[in-house]
Amino acid sequence: MNGLSSINIYSPADLSQSLQTMDTPCLLVDEARMNTNILRLHDRLQKAGVAFRPHFKTAKSWDVFSRMMTGPHGPATVSTLREAEELIRHGVTDIIYAVGISPDKLPRVQRLRKGGITLAVLLDSVEQAVAVASASDPFDPIPVLIELDCDGHRSGVKPQDATLLLSIAKALTPKARLMGVLTHAGESYEARGQAALEAAAEQERMAVVTAAETLRAAGHPCPVVSVGSTPTAFTAQSYEGVTEVRAGVFVFFDLVQAGIGICTTDDIALSVLSTVIGHQREKGWTIIDAGWTALSSDRGTAGQTVDQGYGLVCDVAGHPMADLVVTIVNQEHGIVAARPGSPRLDCDLPIGTRLRILPNHACATATQHDRYHVIGAGKNTVTEIWERGRGW
Amino acid sequence: MNGLSSINIYSPADLSQSLQTMDTPCLLVDEARMNTNILRLHDRLQKAGVAFRPHFKTAKSWDVFSRMMTGPHGPATVSTLREAEELIRHGVTDIIYAVGISPDKLPRVQRLRKGGITLAVLLDSVEQAVAVASASDPFDPIPVLIELDCDGHRSGVKPQDATLLLSIAKALTPKARLMGVLTHAGESYEARGQAALEAAAEQERMAVVTAAETLRAAGHPCPVVSVGSTPTAFTAQSYEGVTEVRAGVFVFFDLVQAGIGICTTDDIALSVLSTVIGHQREKGWTIIDAGWTALSSDRGTAGQTVDQGYGLVCDVAGHPMADLVVTIVNQEHGIVAARPGSPRLDCDLPIGTRLRILPNHACATATQHDRYHVIGAGKNTVTEIWERGRGW
Repeated sequence: MNGLSSINIYSPADLSQSLQTMDTPCLLVDEARMNTNILRLHDRLQKAGVAFRPHFKTAKSWDVFSRMMTGPHGPATVSTLREAEELIRHGVTDIIYAVGISPDKLPRVQRLRKGGITLAVLLDSVEQAVAVASASDPFDPIPVLIELDCDGHRSGVKPQDATLLLSIAKALTPKARLMGVLTHAGESYEARGQAALEAAAEQERMAVVTAAETLRAAGHPCPVVSVGSTPTAFTAQSYEGVTEVRAGVFVFFDLVQAGIGICTTDDIALSVLSTVIGHQREKGWTIIDAGWTALSSDRGTAGQTVDQGYGLVCDVAGHPMADLVVTIVNQEHGIVAARPGSPRLDCDLPIGTRLRILPNHACATATQHDRYHVIGAGKNTVTEIWERGRGW
Repeated sequence: MNGLSSINIYSPADLSQSLQTMDTPCLLVDEARMNTNILRLHDRLQKAGVAFRPHFKTAKSWDVFSRMMTGPHGPATVSTLREAEELIRHGVTDIIYAVGISPDKLPRVQRLRKGGITLAVLLDSVEQAVAVASASDPFDPIPVLIELDCDGHRSGVKPQDATLLLSIAKALTPKARLMGVLTHAGESYEARGQAALEAAAEQERMAVVTAAETLRAAGHPCPVVSVGSTPTAFTAQSYEGVTEVRAGVFVFFDLVQAGIGICTTDDIALSVLSTVIGHQREKGWTIIDAGWTALSSDRGTAGQTVDQGYGLVCDVAGHPMADLVVTIVNQEHGIVAARPGSPRLDCDLPIGTRLRILPNHACATATQHDRYHVIGAGKNTVTEIWERGRGW
């Protein structure tokens, strides 16, 4: 990952800077909120008696991820092989690469598996299974999960498609090792209300449990039964037959999750610190130095009941300023205005005012930055810098 | 910039990799197209007798930018002070920081100006002018441009607002140095057809010329009269009274510019190389390993005549595959399908197929990557790696 390894360019003087003086735009993490979010999911899953396999893709920072994990060596989920490399470097040995494998990535997978690393790949076709079996050493078979499509969101075998499931299992055997089944309830992001969320979670569970039963009935061991999405992780009523839960965005939460009802805006641990650089007062515009390079262009709340534009505006202490959102983003400019349809606010934010913008989608906003500026629990200054990686 | 300085992690072996074998997703630059794009604008502006001040914000790479410049020391435009630092490190001495200044950034501006660097700041209020004058050393005044709002796009003084213009000039004098006026025809991106583009360019020109005349009539020298946007740079019919033109995205061009009519898709020098990782055949979906981390979430063509989704799909040689676009992006997945409304394509792209995705917005897509993989003129392999920076 980018400079994630060793370089710390920050002098102690930088860390003494207050939110009123540090360079903007920059990415802030509220450590207390983050810790609470982690504790909340750990508690819930521990009570449910199901293992937790956190996803690295949101934070992409060892400083954050080491707190999300339930053990020093994993389990863990990644979305790129670069993420897997980073976790292996930190001693993680149990990893699922949860994006469908292409055959050309198998040599790199094999290099990463050296030294006893469990790095499982995901697939949903016979074509991929043949390629993985072909790349496998029979004395060291590549572990494989079959991806299920529980809700039409993206990739995966339909849970009822026993023919395809068994054809894939057959193509894997005996050279590769079928480790289990996995699904992601991506459509749970569209669910509204507790009943709909519980239904999405149950649909997610049923998809993998059904597929696991099909495979086992045909004599294929299927030890891992993996589900995961932040909305279902917080609402599932049963984990019967499920062995593990994956989630990532919960560590910071965001406006999309608040819109779904999984958290409140007071739980959101990530924000972009920015500075007012101008106005177009007759339009009710306040212009800030955070555009899409700092906030991302994610519009994840566009289809929700409350459209948060490109982010909800808070004061420097993190308190939302009712109905002020970022309505337009250019590369290095954001335009703050009253949410469309709101009564026009007579907002007076002089040039130089510091504002914090809560993100629509924590993964997307974090990706735009190379480091987290950590506001320590109980503090109002930056107490640590956590490097963040990206790339493939 | 991120590791931009010295590290080259690529061995000669990496450079011999073909587009069929290199790790994906990754960012490609077609060097021949890029050179042609640069030549086209240089030629046009040279014939018009107006200076060119290229914008660093699109490429953020010295390897690219050094070819865009008309001289080894500038002139240049930047959108962040980090960009200015990078250019100064490479010997550029004539820079405009073309985003409204906030007072807290002035100490950093002053540090960057040491050693005879002309780093001009932009402002559109008396409040900022007072702050800049206050930060200025009368023996080394900070150069200032007043931003004009030529089309209601974003920041800037209305060209007709002589009172505000003169109040700003008065607040600057004598401690800071009024260097000129600047505007950006951001709304030219919405113009359709040659006549509308020419009108946008003329409106851009008139805004700065009018303001410069107002300032000069009141005794304020106004040597720099700066306009700039890629659409107007290619369509303006007159530069009378204008001293320089700024543009950035033209170096790569993109689908938004093609939609406006400033280029064709055959001129687009930037693409994301990706690999097919799966299908949902009954939906006509081909799934690739390029999601929003690789493509960005930019939907700049959404309001254009031809909506290109999250990018236009080309084969590995760079030829567009009619009506195939990226219709959905998740973090590491892209869904390729026929453009909505198109006849369903019977596309057969096996797992492992390499595709190149042309970007909606070159600036946004490039920002998602740390390096350019350069396809040398007349070659079909990567001949160079150019590092790219980001951050503030």
